[in-house]
Amino acid sequence: MPRPTPLSGFPEWLPAQRIIEQRAIEILTRTFELHGFASVATRAVEPLDQLLRKGETSKEVYVLRRLHADPEQASGDGDLGLHFDLTVPFARYVLENAGHLSFPFKRYQIQPVWRGERPQDGRFREFWQADIDVVGEGSLPDHLEIDVPLIAAEALTALSEIGLPPVRVLVNDRRVAESFYRGVGLEAVDEVLRCVDKLAKIGRDGVAALLRDELGASEAQVAATLDLAELSGGVDVVERVRVLAIGAGVGRADPQHLADLETGLSALERLLREAQVRAPGVVVADMSIARGLDYYTGAVYETVLVGHEKLGSICSGGRYDSLASDGARTYPGVGISIGLSRVLSRLFSAGLVTASRSVPTAVLVAVADEESRSRSNQVAAQLRARGVPCDVAPAAAKFGKQIRYADRRGIPYVWFPGAPGEADAVKDIRSGDQVEADATVWAPPAADWFPRAVVTASD
Amino acid sequence: MPRPTPLSGFPEWLPAQRIIEQRAIEILTRTFELHGFASVATRAVEPLDQLLRKGETSKEVYVLRRLHADPEQASGDGDLGLHFDLTVPFARYVLENAGHLSFPFKRYQIQPVWRGERPQDGRFREFWQADIDVVGEGSLPDHLEIDVPLIAAEALTALSEIGLPPVRVLVNDRRVAESFYRGVGLEAVDEVLRCVDKLAKIGRDGVAALLRDELGASEAQVAATLDLAELSGGVDVVERVRVLAIGAGVGRADPQHLADLETGLSALERLLREAQVRAPGVVVADMSIARGLDYYTGAVYETVLVGHEKLGSICSGGRYDSLASDGARTYPGVGISIGLSRVLSRLFSAGLVTASRSVPTAVLVAVADEESRSRSNQVAAQLRARGVPCDVAPAAAKFGKQIRYADRRGIPYVWFPGAPGEADAVKDIRSGDQVEADATVWAPPAADWFPRAVVTASD
Repeated sequence: MPRPTPLSGFPEWLPAQRIIEQRAIEILTRTFELHGFASVATRAVEPLDQLLRKGETSKEVYVLRRLHADPEQASGDGDLGLHFDLTVPFARYVLENAGHLSFPFKRYQIQPVWRGERPQDGRFREFWQADIDVVGEGSLPDHLEIDVPLIAAEALTALSEIGLPPVRVLVNDRRVAESFYRGVGLEAVDEVLRCVDKLAKIGRDGVAALLRDELGASEAQVAATLDLAELSGGVDVVERVRVLAIGAGVGRADPQHLADLETGLSALERLLREAQVRAPGVVVADMSIARGLDYYTGAVYETVLVGHEKLGSICSGGRYDSLASDGARTYPGVGISIGLSRVLSRLFSAGLVTASRSVPTAVLVAVADEESRSRSNQVAAQLRARGVPCDVAPAAAKFGKQIRYADRRGIPYVWFPGAPGEADAVKDIRSGDQVEADATVWAPPAADWFPRAVVTASD
Repeated sequence: MPRPTPLSGFPEWLPAQRIIEQRAIEILTRTFELHGFASVATRAVEPLDQLLRKGETSKEVYVLRRLHADPEQASGDGDLGLHFDLTVPFARYVLENAGHLSFPFKRYQIQPVWRGERPQDGRFREFWQADIDVVGEGSLPDHLEIDVPLIAAEALTALSEIGLPPVRVLVNDRRVAESFYRGVGLEAVDEVLRCVDKLAKIGRDGVAALLRDELGASEAQVAATLDLAELSGGVDVVERVRVLAIGAGVGRADPQHLADLETGLSALERLLREAQVRAPGVVVADMSIARGLDYYTGAVYETVLVGHEKLGSICSGGRYDSLASDGARTYPGVGISIGLSRVLSRLFSAGLVTASRSVPTAVLVAVADEESRSRSNQVAAQLRARGVPCDVAPAAAKFGKQIRYADRRGIPYVWFPGAPGEADAVKDIRSGDQVEADATVWAPPAADWFPRAVVTASD
């Protein structure tokens, strides 16, 4: 087998990077569990017909077949595809297990997803997401629309330990946009959302052209839509939307549009006010946030890394009135999804973080000669019994070579078992300091015990 | 969407079971890291031609296609399949990243694998494995063949915390079997191994018939092969094999057969003697262990759960002289793979373990009325700041209903924020005991802090 080359779109990490990824997953897990979210892991596959219910993503699905499947039996097995997000499998899990779950059900899920992107796009085809969702049975309290983005912000802020820059959570409410568009006479709300979604990419003129050419919007409608989309900031945005809407004639044709707008605005205002208390400076209103392709019905969220806005949203979500439904019952939900691979990939490529070593090992126990290997094993067992990760030198080479074995992996300590009747010694190979030590009591300083994330200064 | 039914062969766990699975993964991770193994996670897919190099498993591979792939471009993309074990992707990872790794390289990997089994078989089509391997560049010290099964045994023994019965690790050495078969004139070693591999399934007579009918073995050859396969026990097995071999004429035609046998036997003896010290009573020699389908060249391992032997091996592996090769360099390895899903599935179906609760939450903070929700949020934030997992009641219902919310999830404590000027109180809802408490200092007893595995007595 010749040396293989990486598969485009399927990122893999080297051991030191993997240590950072593991730490990121630990931090996210801890934050979600502190907030009472239960872990769920779903299988990688779903029936193809379920994956295709979200029409827009159908082209990105990977379909499976058994290599030697009997062609006549193939359809009986039911076509399976790899999940392209964690929402579709979670909605199915909720329906399948509803009788065994307690609602509202809060779950987190950290798993890979797959998208059959064209390889030349340079986009990820396998990547990890970390999702939280709260799902109710029949109904769901509104205040969860406030909690979910704040918990995500807390989790992302905790990732500063692995070098993540500060985040800015951008929030909007679907009901504001929808009632505003209808109020100015644009009834094709989904189409307008799709156009507005492109604002960051194609700019004001580009969106204006789309609205005119594809939706036949008047100049006044174009201006009102863009004026709304360009509003962003703190709680003051709520009043600015109100003024803009009344000026644009929302509510003149049908007072219900203004009532719906107020519903959305008051929800948005509650979210912004609570965020001021619980996460000052992190959450801002941004009326261009549309999440055009998804079936949100209330709050919507996107998140940018400060200084890396071009990366796009690293954490998005919102409220669905119907996350799932089995006909008899409807399950509303609110959730958010952190793009873990996207975040890690940026941290690594920008050189923002490294691990203090590439192995868990804190101590390499040296081996004087193969006859005394069992003595070295015994030392390692004593250290491990107190939770110190150890390795025993693979060969009884010269000590210089054994020290190089540790150095190449970033292992900070080398342990030299004493000859019978003599004390052991442990050497900090960074400083060269060597001291007598007893394997039944010695421990490394806390900072050396496990590999740490070493955050490098960014410009 | 009607209520979906589970997909056969794709096990998923309920939240309380998932807690046990997470704990199992933590225990395995901790054990492997204490021994200096670095974590590696590989992508789910490999090029199909790499997956098909192990001929026997080709029928079990799931192949991917993009749903709307351009048929003319499809082959240019290269066919991809889901990995069916963690060894093939690891071997590829080693070759791909050899320049960035330090050898011997010790890695663990805990991930799902997929096998396109026929659905009617009732076998898993997606399941998790936990593998450790040590891989060298050019050479690999022999003592690692001793360490690897003992580390696996240590990890499995630690799983007693989640109810795993004791394990018995069965060991053999390929060189013993090979030289013995050749020594009695059976040159088709792979075929003999495949027959012997079926001993547990089809019995002595069945294997005898296969050896006679398929390989043309003489009665003496059949008897010698079966006599060898039926030897098992402690270090004494080594001498019994030696006696059997000499009696069966091994070495008479070619002294090299006896020399090879001695090489294998002395390796086996070292393993058994070291195991007596490091894991007394866990490791036994079993000369029927063949691992017929894999390319092992030294030690081979299988592991049974005591009292659940019919489940088959839950942890298997061995030594490969060539785990990977890029033409210029060969990478020998020794590794072992724990069948995590197989183990968990048995624990759950046999009712051997449950979790003390179905959520991470230790405390539910009650909400007296929606106006005071922010006060309850503040209590929760104070508890979380000291690492106590909390949930806030989703609705300001009657306290009885809020207590039932906690009870249904197994949350042990409900916190009642006091009215302004009054002290808070916390109630242990199992005993009914309620005491005054301060959220800035109170903590649950250690046993209640996180969900625990509750091992139930088995008969």
